[in-house]
Amino acid sequence: MIQAKVVLYAIETGKPIVVLNEDDIKEIGCHIGDRVFISTAEKSVTAIVDATTSFVNAGEIALFEDVSQSLGVNGGETVSIKPAGRPKSVEFIKKKLDGQKLGSDEIRSIVQDIVDNNLSDIELSSFVSGIYVNGYDMDEVVAMTNAMVETGEPIDFGPETVDKHCIGGVAGNRTTMIVVPIMGAAGLTCPKTSSRAITSPAGTADTMEVLAGVDFTTSELKELISRVKCCIVWGGSVNLAPADDKIIGAEYPLSLDPEGQVLASVMAKKKSVDADYLVIDIPVGKSAKIAEMSNANELARKFIELGKRLGIATECLITDGSSPIGRGIGPALESRDVLLALEGKGPIDLVNKSLDLAGCLFELSGKSHPGEGRRLAESILSSGKAREKMMEIIEAQGGNPKVRAADIAVGDKTYGIQSDLKGHVKFIDNKLISKVARAAGAPKDKEAGVYLHADVGDLVKKGDTLFTIYSKTEGKLSDAIAIAEKIRPIIVGGVVLDKIV
Amino acid sequence: MIQAKVVLYAIETGKPIVVLNEDDIKEIGCHIGDRVFISTAEKSVTAIVDATTSFVNAGEIALFEDVSQSLGVNGGETVSIKPAGRPKSVEFIKKKLDGQKLGSDEIRSIVQDIVDNNLSDIELSSFVSGIYVNGYDMDEVVAMTNAMVETGEPIDFGPETVDKHCIGGVAGNRTTMIVVPIMGAAGLTCPKTSSRAITSPAGTADTMEVLAGVDFTTSELKELISRVKCCIVWGGSVNLAPADDKIIGAEYPLSLDPEGQVLASVMAKKKSVDADYLVIDIPVGKSAKIAEMSNANELARKFIELGKRLGIATECLITDGSSPIGRGIGPALESRDVLLALEGKGPIDLVNKSLDLAGCLFELSGKSHPGEGRRLAESILSSGKAREKMMEIIEAQGGNPKVRAADIAVGDKTYGIQSDLKGHVKFIDNKLISKVARAAGAPKDKEAGVYLHADVGDLVKKGDTLFTIYSKTEGKLSDAIAIAEKIRPIIVGGVVLDKIV
Repeated sequence: MIQAKVVLYAIETGKPIVVLNEDDIKEIGCHIGDRVFISTAEKSVTAIVDATTSFVNAGEIALFEDVSQSLGVNGGETVSIKPAGRPKSVEFIKKKLDGQKLGSDEIRSIVQDIVDNNLSDIELSSFVSGIYVNGYDMDEVVAMTNAMVETGEPIDFGPETVDKHCIGGVAGNRTTMIVVPIMGAAGLTCPKTSSRAITSPAGTADTMEVLAGVDFTTSELKELISRVKCCIVWGGSVNLAPADDKIIGAEYPLSLDPEGQVLASVMAKKKSVDADYLVIDIPVGKSAKIAEMSNANELARKFIELGKRLGIATECLITDGSSPIGRGIGPALESRDVLLALEGKGPIDLVNKSLDLAGCLFELSGKSHPGEGRRLAESILSSGKAREKMMEIIEAQGGNPKVRAADIAVGDKTYGIQSDLKGHVKFIDNKLISKVARAAGAPKDKEAGVYLHADVGDLVKKGDTLFTIYSKTEGKLSDAIAIAEKIRPIIVGGVVLDKIV
Repeated sequence: MIQAKVVLYAIETGKPIVVLNEDDIKEIGCHIGDRVFISTAEKSVTAIVDATTSFVNAGEIALFEDVSQSLGVNGGETVSIKPAGRPKSVEFIKKKLDGQKLGSDEIRSIVQDIVDNNLSDIELSSFVSGIYVNGYDMDEVVAMTNAMVETGEPIDFGPETVDKHCIGGVAGNRTTMIVVPIMGAAGLTCPKTSSRAITSPAGTADTMEVLAGVDFTTSELKELISRVKCCIVWGGSVNLAPADDKIIGAEYPLSLDPEGQVLASVMAKKKSVDADYLVIDIPVGKSAKIAEMSNANELARKFIELGKRLGIATECLITDGSSPIGRGIGPALESRDVLLALEGKGPIDLVNKSLDLAGCLFELSGKSHPGEGRRLAESILSSGKAREKMMEIIEAQGGNPKVRAADIAVGDKTYGIQSDLKGHVKFIDNKLISKVARAAGAPKDKEAGVYLHADVGDLVKKGDTLFTIYSKTEGKLSDAIAIAEKIRPIIVGGVVLDKIV
């Protein structure tokens, strides 16, 4: 054990890291990456050691916000430091790297340490690599789902709670904001949490934010549901399953997307809001996340089995993800499509897909007889009740309940990309069109994005505008134009599929 | 692109990390863990983004020592920030996680980014996990070895350069400090770099440091060898293969020890000093690193093949690692054993093993005829020429060339652990006896450690002292006594091997 004087740095690191002089590390008999137990007369905390020869002298310990707050020190105090063992979870992480199956207690222990920020980036990354390489079996997926739920703040919303999820990869595709008010208008509970964009030009939370607030705490979420039964909020602000975000953060740098973890991540969010009935949209297409029907089928089977084991009645709709759904891409442009749909004038593919999803949920939850779900959804939409419900939701979330599609402001710097030949639109690439929308400023600039004037199959003439770019600044507009002209996200008249040379 | 004002923190992080406000990260269109390109009018640097909502305001960027020095800023300056792509090496890391074989250019690219600190902990850890799970084939080991050498500062020491290595796990076992002067006395070049203890109570560098300095730069090392042809220095201070330490740092938290990386790590150190002839000591025993002969054989075959491909004539000696070699454990106590051996009075097992290793190197390098190496080594040792050479080395490294074993100071707080029955010493556990020596203060307290009074096979009476604990402080002495009495590192008279209940 050694004594050291606290030197405080007003920085939050998100990890319990302390920095000691190399001499002191030797003195304690530990090593960079080891844990030490730090204590004052009143409090103690376990932290991970980093070393320096420069900015911390022997006899000093550098603390950052996280650890200093737990210890209740402000700098200048003397603390005791002694070696502490590795958390048990590190053993279990190694077990997964060794290709062994983890028990539910072991998974729970890892998830608890992730939530408590007890693991270093190296340890967390090893876990993610282990899952990526060695996978989970269904028992492990169930255990991971339950562990993520139990280490969060799950809410019991009672019976008749419905939910939907889309595995993503399709530009536009803002069905949630149409399905949820249809559910609500039919009297069902739908506490929908959505994500913000990570690599896409808009997440549902970003799009909803054009119309209303989306940042709510767990207790505010409860209050919302007790009042209007439905909501569309950002999942990141409610503390439903905090392990999920941290795991996703470690997956991001290498774009790791281990299937078992994706299954657990999706279902933990649903289990956390006590969903009873769930429909999952799995788009399939060349430029979507899933390219092959067989993979979509397999994934659907797994979701359904997992749902069964978690007590969530789950159905999957495999949908056409070959091109964008709706016309707008970017938060404001997508919210305009949604309002148009609720007003009875929306893009036909967006409306049709939303009605199919809503119909499926009606039948699954017993709200309608088999085969009659879509008709019920359609009548609710065309009667204006869905729009009415949406306005209630918007008002409850602090937005303007009188908003109409025509009120939505979009970027005033615009440019039309034209077709350079006559022919049918053969292909609109989800990833490429998203790239253009992001270059234009979406999702940060809510008014930025792309509006599609033509859909796949449409006949266009030379000089017809294929899509318009909207931007808030000339700089971003010209960036987006340059990219659009280079990558050509819409293919007209293409018959040659490949050239073999 | 955004502009931001530099806020400087006088902290070295060892990684090119910058912290931005979450709003600015969205504005740039990137994400935590992404790279950004930061530039002033004169300089630019690529760094990895972390986010905060607290200590960095929108419009500011927090820089730490490493990045601010590269950029030449002191705080208050305005810099431009725009997204930068991932390094190519991240792709190759993912390829290894996916179980694919890496080409030598790909491995080189990863190693270069490791040396340049271009990878985050998450990325580096993914690489280590990938090697651990999917391994290397021999081509990859060769490529990794060469990449580690080429990204360092290799030295050409000319022909007749010999080297030795021990894969470790045996307490005491300080053969290097006897073999090297024997090589030198025979006119061979032996630029020996050794490690410090990580989890053991003494590394060769720690032990040599009792007698002389061990921290030398590459150019100082060259100068040493040009003067005395041999040395025993700390490998961590010469910049021979800097990737190695960084990889080992990422392996440490989970105790990952992927065989291919171990092979490359050992051989890179030898290749860096241009070794022509190499003997590798592979101890086998229950409490050593390698427990089974078959594993030792397999490892030896790989070292020999790798040596062939790298142009280093390599032989392996598989040795008895069932118990400690020598009597002292801890830097001072081990250095005393070494000096005793050079004075002709050393522990018989330490002397014998050192002569076997030296003899092997003599035969391998053609310095002696086959079958006559050990005799040559023995004559050099008994003639006093090895001691003479060692004194030359000690003097060249800044130590006292008149030092004798009797001069070595050891801890003055001592305690003898006695046998509680009469019988033969059956087993001395390397790991457990090391634990006692570490508790006593080794390797930080050079004078601390354990001295063994009995060897395996010795007959002891009840009350005979089995080993003495040496410490610098009463506190550490009593810690070590408590541990020794609990874990019982020496077993006397044990016949029952296991009890099945």
